Amino acid sequence: MKPLIAITVGDFNGIGPEIALKAARRPSVQRICTPILVGPLDVFRHTAKVLKLNVQLEKTSLLIVRKSGISVVDVGDGIPADITFGKMTKAAGRSAGVAIEKAVELCVLGRTAAMVTAPVSKEGLTLAGYNFPGQTEMVALLSRSQRVVMMLIAKSMRIGLVTIHIPVRAVADQLTAEKVLEKGTTLSESLRRDFGIRQPRIAVLGLNPHAGENGLLGTEERDIIGPAIRTMQSNGLQVDGPFAADGFFGTHAYRRYDAVLAMYHDQGLIPLKMAGFAQGVNYSAGLNIVRTSPDHGVAYELAGKNKANIASMLAAISLAVSIWKRRNVHD
Amino acid sequence: MKPLIAITVGDFNGIGPEIALKAARRPSVQRICTPILVGPLDVFRHTAKVLKLNVQLEKTSLLIVRKSGISVVDVGDGIPADITFGKMTKAAGRSAGVAIEKAVELCVLGRTAAMVTAPVSKEGLTLAGYNFPGQTEMVALLSRSQRVVMMLIAKSMRIGLVTIHIPVRAVADQLTAEKVLEKGTTLSESLRRDFGIRQPRIAVLGLNPHAGENGLLGTEERDIIGPAIRTMQSNGLQVDGPFAADGFFGTHAYRRYDAVLAMYHDQGLIPLKMAGFAQGVNYSAGLNIVRTSPDHGVAYELAGKNKANIASMLAAISLAVSIWKRRNVHD
Repeated sequence: MKPLIAITVGDFNGIGPEIALKAARRPSVQRICTPILVGPLDVFRHTAKVLKLNVQLEKTSLLIVRKSGISVVDVGDGIPADITFGKMTKAAGRSAGVAIEKAVELCVLGRTAAMVTAPVSKEGLTLAGYNFPGQTEMVALLSRSQRVVMMLIAKSMRIGLVTIHIPVRAVADQLTAEKVLEKGTTLSESLRRDFGIRQPRIAVLGLNPHAGENGLLGTEERDIIGPAIRTMQSNGLQVDGPFAADGFFGTHAYRRYDAVLAMYHDQGLIPLKMAGFAQGVNYSAGLNIVRTSPDHGVAYELAGKNKANIASMLAAISLAVSIWKRRNVHD
Repeated sequence: MKPLIAITVGDFNGIGPEIALKAARRPSVQRICTPILVGPLDVFRHTAKVLKLNVQLEKTSLLIVRKSGISVVDVGDGIPADITFGKMTKAAGRSAGVAIEKAVELCVLGRTAAMVTAPVSKEGLTLAGYNFPGQTEMVALLSRSQRVVMMLIAKSMRIGLVTIHIPVRAVADQLTAEKVLEKGTTLSESLRRDFGIRQPRIAVLGLNPHAGENGLLGTEERDIIGPAIRTMQSNGLQVDGPFAADGFFGTHAYRRYDAVLAMYHDQGLIPLKMAGFAQGVNYSAGLNIVRTSPDHGVAYELAGKNKANIASMLAAISLAVSIWKRRNVHD
């Protein structure tokens, strides 16, 4: 039985519709799932026409999914889409937001097995009234999930983030032992349930240069991260750290762990993207539903030019299917 | 004419004496310079004995440098060194500090062409009363230099840091347009004077995730980094940015620049160490004297075991010689 996978349109002035369409028609994708595009039908039609993609698009209610062509859950109300490739607009932000809402609903109701989200513009979403720091937080709230860890997955590396889309100025204040404990525990559970790793080994990074150098360069390792690690250890989790981030990645120590828990966005994203750009996948671990995403942005500069790289989108779809399968076995 | 290069002992309970000795006796090093070890003679003697290194050590005043053997400027006052490999001690911190003071003096007086510093323990230095965040700051003060940029150099990457050894909590507050401007300008001058690059191209990173995403994830790009970049541009420097750090490194955009100006320690050090661990060199650009250093730490766990990797020390010596030569041509 092939799972239905909802793929949201993303920001339609970026490369979202292109990578969604191109991935959905791939035989390698259709072999493992039935992709369901979620977005304005008119946007997908227009994009297919501009990019000269030979695809047959079928509007669906998901009660019946036709075998031929690619199914679209139309959230456009039949209105012609106001596409201006390369521009950040309120209309594109609104469509992106409505598609996410619809895909979450399909997953929560069990009509689709998982959702894969094409990239959005946070500014565009904000213009349209969706005030979320990112899709991860939005999907967590809409699916009424109590917990979420933003996880990034490249070939040789899995990263979980304690803080996500906040200014560097706010990172230290938002770091608490409770938060490190919650994110680390959720990450460990996800490695077991979603990735089939029986005894997950997690490395926890420090916050400061040289992991604080015993308090000389910061106290969060001693007062916050260290105690959280010890609590996880006494809860039976295999957790080491806190490690100085530069040496940890420089010596490839991450290869000895199933995942790395980073304290802030760039601490995790810089090494991940260096290790495997264009193949990275963003996974929202710990949600009530399964949601993955390519790890790149809207790429306005490439929109409408038939030049987008779909490797990360393909990896995101493949991971969503794999997690859905593992959860079925696990639960 | 071969330059005299002062090599400090570093923390003598770490791998400092081993890498200094092993590098100094290398024919490839002796071909390009005359290495002068700076530290307690007894420490080098003891280390050579323990590691069974066949070297002839000669105490020197630098008024006469003997051609045979390796010259040592003895800062040990003839007292037997209290070596306990692997331990952080006040005695080792004191020796490390005195050696740095002596090497700076030799460079300021023009008796040595440059100094290369083996790694120290900041805790050890602090115990011994040297209250500096790092060697870079200590050497800057002792040499009465008005400006310094900590620069890290690996095979394919040069990184300059705006803030260095401070907690992440303090980074945003310590970032000012004046500081970004000063560091960027010093970096550009160093690329010209020390690296022979006529029209240096510099990339400046943002501070926040996604370089602040137009103010949604932080304002320092708009209020501090952006204005500093524009001032440098109007001063005729080739400077681009601010760039989102993760994508910048992930897409290898750094290859299009002669150097990258990072806002904080790990933002620069993580990608640098991933790009070329064990070959990185730390260079204090903008000083009145020439000072380089291997980019690794004291490695207490390897001390006295004959296992230390000297690649970074060799690269540091080679860079010091090369900068000294270029400055002579330039000035």
